[in-house]
Amino acid sequence: MFVFYANKRTYPKSLKEEVAKAMKRLESSVGAKFGDKQNPLLVSVRSGARASMPGMMDTILNLGINDNVVEGLAKKTNNLRFAYDAYRRFVQMYGDVVLGLKPTHKDEIDPFEAIIERKKEENGVHNDTELNAEDLKDLVKKFKTAIKERTGHDFPENPMDQLWGAVGAVFGSWNNDRAIAYRKMYDIPESWGTAVSVVAMVFGNMGESSGTGVAFTRDPASGRNAFYGEYLMNAQGEDVVAGIRTPIPLSRLSEENPKIYKQLDNIRKTLEKHYRDMNDIEFTIQEGKLYMLQCRIGKRTAFAAIKMAVDMVAEKLITEREALSRIEPDQLNQLLRPVFNLDEKAAAVKGGRLLAKGLNAGPGAATGRVVFNAPDAEEWNKRGETVILTRIETSPEDIRGMDASAGILTARGGMTSHAALVARQMGKVCVAGCSSLEIDYSKHVMNVNGKTIREGDWISIDGTTGEVIEGQVPTKPSEVLQVLIDRTLDPKDAPVYREFEQVMKWADKYRTLKIRTNADQPDQASNAVAFGAEGIGLCRTEHMFFGEGKIGPMREMILADTVEARKKALAKLLPLQRADFEGIFEAMQGKPVTIRTLDPPLHEFVPHEEKAQRELAGEMGLSYEKVHQRVEDLHEFNPMLGFRGCRLGIIYPEITEMQSRAIFEAAANTLKKGIKVEPEIMIPLVGNVKELENQAAIVKQVAQEVMKENGVKFMYHIGTMIEIPRGALTADEIAKVAEFFSFGTNDLTQTTLGMSRDDSGKFLIPYSQMEVYPKDPFEVLDRTGVGSLMKIAKEKGRSVRPDLKIGICGEHGGEPSSVEFCHIIGLNYVSCSPFRVPIARLAAARAALAYPVAPAKAAEKSPSKKAKRSKR
Amino acid sequence: MFVFYANKRTYPKSLKEEVAKAMKRLESSVGAKFGDKQNPLLVSVRSGARASMPGMMDTILNLGINDNVVEGLAKKTNNLRFAYDAYRRFVQMYGDVVLGLKPTHKDEIDPFEAIIERKKEENGVHNDTELNAEDLKDLVKKFKTAIKERTGHDFPENPMDQLWGAVGAVFGSWNNDRAIAYRKMYDIPESWGTAVSVVAMVFGNMGESSGTGVAFTRDPASGRNAFYGEYLMNAQGEDVVAGIRTPIPLSRLSEENPKIYKQLDNIRKTLEKHYRDMNDIEFTIQEGKLYMLQCRIGKRTAFAAIKMAVDMVAEKLITEREALSRIEPDQLNQLLRPVFNLDEKAAAVKGGRLLAKGLNAGPGAATGRVVFNAPDAEEWNKRGETVILTRIETSPEDIRGMDASAGILTARGGMTSHAALVARQMGKVCVAGCSSLEIDYSKHVMNVNGKTIREGDWISIDGTTGEVIEGQVPTKPSEVLQVLIDRTLDPKDAPVYREFEQVMKWADKYRTLKIRTNADQPDQASNAVAFGAEGIGLCRTEHMFFGEGKIGPMREMILADTVEARKKALAKLLPLQRADFEGIFEAMQGKPVTIRTLDPPLHEFVPHEEKAQRELAGEMGLSYEKVHQRVEDLHEFNPMLGFRGCRLGIIYPEITEMQSRAIFEAAANTLKKGIKVEPEIMIPLVGNVKELENQAAIVKQVAQEVMKENGVKFMYHIGTMIEIPRGALTADEIAKVAEFFSFGTNDLTQTTLGMSRDDSGKFLIPYSQMEVYPKDPFEVLDRTGVGSLMKIAKEKGRSVRPDLKIGICGEHGGEPSSVEFCHIIGLNYVSCSPFRVPIARLAAARAALAYPVAPAKAAEKSPSKKAKRSKR
Repeated sequence: MFVFYANKRTYPKSLKEEVAKAMKRLESSVGAKFGDKQNPLLVSVRSGARASMPGMMDTILNLGINDNVVEGLAKKTNNLRFAYDAYRRFVQMYGDVVLGLKPTHKDEIDPFEAIIERKKEENGVHNDTELNAEDLKDLVKKFKTAIKERTGHDFPENPMDQLWGAVGAVFGSWNNDRAIAYRKMYDIPESWGTAVSVVAMVFGNMGESSGTGVAFTRDPASGRNAFYGEYLMNAQGEDVVAGIRTPIPLSRLSEENPKIYKQLDNIRKTLEKHYRDMNDIEFTIQEGKLYMLQCRIGKRTAFAAIKMAVDMVAEKLITEREALSRIEPDQLNQLLRPVFNLDEKAAAVKGGRLLAKGLNAGPGAATGRVVFNAPDAEEWNKRGETVILTRIETSPEDIRGMDASAGILTARGGMTSHAALVARQMGKVCVAGCSSLEIDYSKHVMNVNGKTIREGDWISIDGTTGEVIEGQVPTKPSEVLQVLIDRTLDPKDAPVYREFEQVMKWADKYRTLKIRTNADQPDQASNAVAFGAEGIGLCRTEHMFFGEGKIGPMREMILADTVEARKKALAKLLPLQRADFEGIFEAMQGKPVTIRTLDPPLHEFVPHEEKAQRELAGEMGLSYEKVHQRVEDLHEFNPMLGFRGCRLGIIYPEITEMQSRAIFEAAANTLKKGIKVEPEIMIPLVGNVKELENQAAIVKQVAQEVMKENGVKFMYHIGTMIEIPRGALTADEIAKVAEFFSFGTNDLTQTTLGMSRDDSGKFLIPYSQMEVYPKDPFEVLDRTGVGSLMKIAKEKGRSVRPDLKIGICGEHGGEPSSVEFCHIIGLNYVSCSPFRVPIARLAAARAALAYPVAPAKAAEKSPSKKAKRSKR
Repeated sequence: MFVFYANKRTYPKSLKEEVAKAMKRLESSVGAKFGDKQNPLLVSVRSGARASMPGMMDTILNLGINDNVVEGLAKKTNNLRFAYDAYRRFVQMYGDVVLGLKPTHKDEIDPFEAIIERKKEENGVHNDTELNAEDLKDLVKKFKTAIKERTGHDFPENPMDQLWGAVGAVFGSWNNDRAIAYRKMYDIPESWGTAVSVVAMVFGNMGESSGTGVAFTRDPASGRNAFYGEYLMNAQGEDVVAGIRTPIPLSRLSEENPKIYKQLDNIRKTLEKHYRDMNDIEFTIQEGKLYMLQCRIGKRTAFAAIKMAVDMVAEKLITEREALSRIEPDQLNQLLRPVFNLDEKAAAVKGGRLLAKGLNAGPGAATGRVVFNAPDAEEWNKRGETVILTRIETSPEDIRGMDASAGILTARGGMTSHAALVARQMGKVCVAGCSSLEIDYSKHVMNVNGKTIREGDWISIDGTTGEVIEGQVPTKPSEVLQVLIDRTLDPKDAPVYREFEQVMKWADKYRTLKIRTNADQPDQASNAVAFGAEGIGLCRTEHMFFGEGKIGPMREMILADTVEARKKALAKLLPLQRADFEGIFEAMQGKPVTIRTLDPPLHEFVPHEEKAQRELAGEMGLSYEKVHQRVEDLHEFNPMLGFRGCRLGIIYPEITEMQSRAIFEAAANTLKKGIKVEPEIMIPLVGNVKELENQAAIVKQVAQEVMKENGVKFMYHIGTMIEIPRGALTADEIAKVAEFFSFGTNDLTQTTLGMSRDDSGKFLIPYSQMEVYPKDPFEVLDRTGVGSLMKIAKEKGRSVRPDLKIGICGEHGGEPSSVEFCHIIGLNYVSCSPFRVPIARLAAARAALAYPVAPAKAAEKSPSKKAKRSKR
């Protein structure tokens, strides 16, 4: 084997000569001759960058063969068919890759494949393996004719010409469009260039003393420290993985050829020591001699990644820091969610039961009976049925139904649609935006790619892959969940949990970002704490209004004509909200809790169908026309940019008054129980400091009243969401009033990009394919656009209030790349849905290790006197 | 008279002493004694800042009177009633203003007024003037009792105490909330402080040789250089303007008292020479002697402002620059629009025909018969009726109906709603957002504050004031329009036009900003050129699709399932669009034309009612269900942030292809006629340079094709709207591709403020009252938020392309304060609706005079080679 490095700039003029010299050295070390008929040397040519970079040239095998050499090879191997098969493969590969005959569109047909197909038809056979040496020889001839026709040149017979062509093609592929785009995206310097490696071919199909195999230095599924692999004797190349012959477990090799096995096992140990990681290796045995073809870092499941990382630290093979770098934060999802029994799922798919694919919006596996509306979900759940709530889209009205379901399936909406957001926060399995569902609510039925699914039919949804499967597929619960949430499993019986816990401990040791959670209910809060949340970064008060007995007074408030009527309705909500907050404060046991005042447009709380409006009118003692008219009045062209956020509390100050009172009375009651509490009141959608001033005045006024009435003192803080560009751009003005900022990056992305997340389906997928936004900006934070506003806000905000506490509470708060960005720009914390807390912890640790900048920790730890407020 | 200056910081300790000294001097100069019974001196006390600053204290008249002095005054004037009326007025004013008894809420009743009312009831009279001296004396007593009750203190009898109280109140009012807020808004330094002026009272009601009057040094209505005013003998204070007695024209004074008149006329001349402007003066004649009470710069109509400015330059009284500073750009509106016959309108309002008030969205006056939908407007117009199109809101489907109407009236939508935008562009009168209209489309009727208006009823709308009046009110056309647009009047018969033209010439001489117009049709373009437009800054191609014969193929295109079907429909649109562009290029005669590719969401082009959908299905040969389904598919939650702008052209490249072809073929045809043309193609809603790259590639490709096919070369430019924050934030990347930027500040305001202009009605009016945004940000550009993004975009854009041409084409382009901002930050041009072009010209000139910064003119005049493109 020899290797050359070159790129456009450093491409050496003497390369051709040096390649020839190196070939001589290779010939003498192997003891065969390139282009020789008697004792031919064949080589493979590949790019050193191939494995990690799309666009680089594929490997060329069997190079050095021609009409002359093939005869010698046949003689040497005593296998005419093998020789011509190698020849046929070589011409095809070379034609495709070096001479550029490989189709660029997937609809086009490879010319060589077309020739093979014709040949098979002529012979009346179905499989390449049924073609004999003569057939293959004919194929080679026809391939060469096709090449001549298409390129105008003869196929190069001279092995050195073949080699030189392949080397040039590798170097050339360094500059193809895909490779350039990839390097640009991943900041790989142009100047690196690529290597070309030329390796002597060995053959595992030279009889029963030859063979080939693949192996992993540890078990890639479980992570167990055991040699794991498969092999086949008298076989070559892809035969092991192609499934035509059944490969033999590697353990059998120790019995059948202990010498080779011992040698291989020693190599395994050497590789692990050298690479300090699990390796995926390929080997060939040629006439009793072991050759290593390739080794690379092996892919693994999340379970294996964690076990290996923990084991290797124990084995002192790697450090804790390295262990953290080995586990992709998103992999932790696999450890938390119920999963399908994989064999059963595969059988279902094989049996044609895969109905459709949507977005993998809430990971995990769920199986249940289809219901098409939220009240049905609740009702069925009450009588013990497991249901999958299936909707065109969900709205806040559906929350209780979603809570009663094992999984949520929607036809519309993206990764941050209402269904997806709520599902992730609840820890529910969710497949969203499954556009092939045609749901007919009135008939309680849906059509999916020609099949009809009725209410009550069983389906299974895989929120990790987006698959929707007809019928039941059994699931099993996650070990981590059984320990942390259900508390049905003892940690000592839960090895996976113990490894998970170890990784989390290391993560906490290295991270500088605090991790909070978005939670609206005491149970969500408790779950999040179990997952390691250090506070609540976003408690959305509106979700509470959909709870038992709350929607009535809420609607009454919305339908009120006068301040008095509104206050009357709000008075009914006050004790209910207060109880909610008490529950949350208790669950959080003194950890910080950020509560956002009412945010969504009011029309989200009222029914839009005539029947429901008539019922509501009856309940409220109003005319249907009045209810209908009021709902119509609430209609907005662009509700996202309408009458919502702090605009509600400014126009209806009595709402902010009631909510502040509920928060502070809950705080007072909690303090009386001896539990620490220091609420953070967050005003949403502030774009102008005067909006915040207006709301802060109300909050402060109520705080003083409640302290006086209850004879207690408590600390509290007032801050704001930064979720519209003007808020970021005027952060210096806003920070004069706000004691903390929390980036609402969902809305900030919508406004900065001028893109509604609910309506972006039509163009965001093509955009992603065209690399306009390579990743969905609602999933992975757009650092260039949204990120630059965040930096502006941070700099302007801290310019007037150096200890300003800044966090993020958009969905990005649980996405590893976005967490990294938050670390880089110096935020104090990220807040995410409970089930993403472990992911955020790990992502924060990895970010801290990758970017060891001075953390902005001081503000979180000790708010200055200015930032603290305690008044009577 | 004497004057003291003071503010909080420089308030002199010795002030009281100095006031006393000054009073002595005043006494000796007037020959009367403050507080003396025999020969009393009364004074008025007022703030020097009063006239120009809200919140400052009102004037106190007749100060120095008490129970003792009043007797002397009665004797001196031989008028007991006068003396007690003066006393009564003084106690009331002092009580209200200095002692703070004036109600702060308008619902409260002034305690003094309440006492007067009771007195009138007792006496059974209706008018103050019917109260005699005894009654007034009793009122003074009761006033003092009320003051004692409410303040706990006696009314100050000592005149020096009265004076000192009034002086303190003036200085105190400098620091009241309204005054502080006002100074903050207008950047008036705190340190200025206010003056207090103390003036000896004179009385115009001391018999027939006394009198009082108000006058203007020129006619404030027409601007004519003639002394204009009114007076009354034996009268005081507000009697002249109160309407109880009919005042006498000033001209009569020259006959009745030529000496006084001559004296007054000399003062008039002196004042005009000194102030170099028209003055509003108040005078009193006391026993044959003329006293001047006050002079200040006089208010005037737009017509007068222009005539005076032009005359005064001719008289060499002022310079051209000063003349420009005398005319508020918005006043020009009055010169362009048809106006009501004011007497007839006043009579209508007096007669109870004022129906409602909405937003003054499109200035001018219109009277016509009510129709409730666009097709009716067209039909009625065809048969010769003048109509007012009355809608809940308008949409692009209504454009032809709007064009057929004399005026547009809507129940919903703000100053930048669709109706308002289109009306201003068309030059139509428009009253928008008139929320008291309850329109029932099905019954062709509306209720307005209890009245019923049916289809065909006459109404009149005043787009300058927002008034909606029942019945016909006659209008007359504008002289400027008759000359420039209708060409029915010769300039030599049009003095107002000639003055307008003079002012415009001066404006053009001083401004550095170029002025363009937003126009979609050749006639709009011609009008704009007549108004002085130097190019088209925004040609919206979508409006064209609503023209004759175009909506059909457009809908066909939208309903198409395949690229082929879409292309077929687009092929039908191509010749129609090409003809539109040819018309515009011809109208513009070589001036630059910026054409925006398709921007609005497609659902705006399709009907939403079942009936219309069924008709459409019939026309297209499709099933109703299919049409309905496709329209449903187009539904978006937030269309403003949805599938629109360049997103359309990226997903359906064939649309951009067709539009580019129509533009370039029109350019080729126009060139062949010997008319210069250099189209600027503008890609909307770009937030990412890749979007622009995608669209620019299509445009360039088509340009090359068209040049080749037609055998001509033409120049063209590709640029982009900057209308979403990410576009501004990444302007450096975008400017690598874009040759020009145009700020779409309507959308940029919506996204930056997170505020839909269509939905902001619920909170923007209260916001304006609370001074969150003191002016509607959709009308007056928000410099702090939106403006800072514009600055970022300009700086980043010019950092990579120093000669980048930058303009604005949002509605702000015709609003004076926004034009000023555009000048300050160095834009090249503003573009506005045709009827606002003169306003923009004047505003740009005033901005250039106020901010003589180095203009960014170079880019407009000579685009660099890099920015020019001419390829085969």
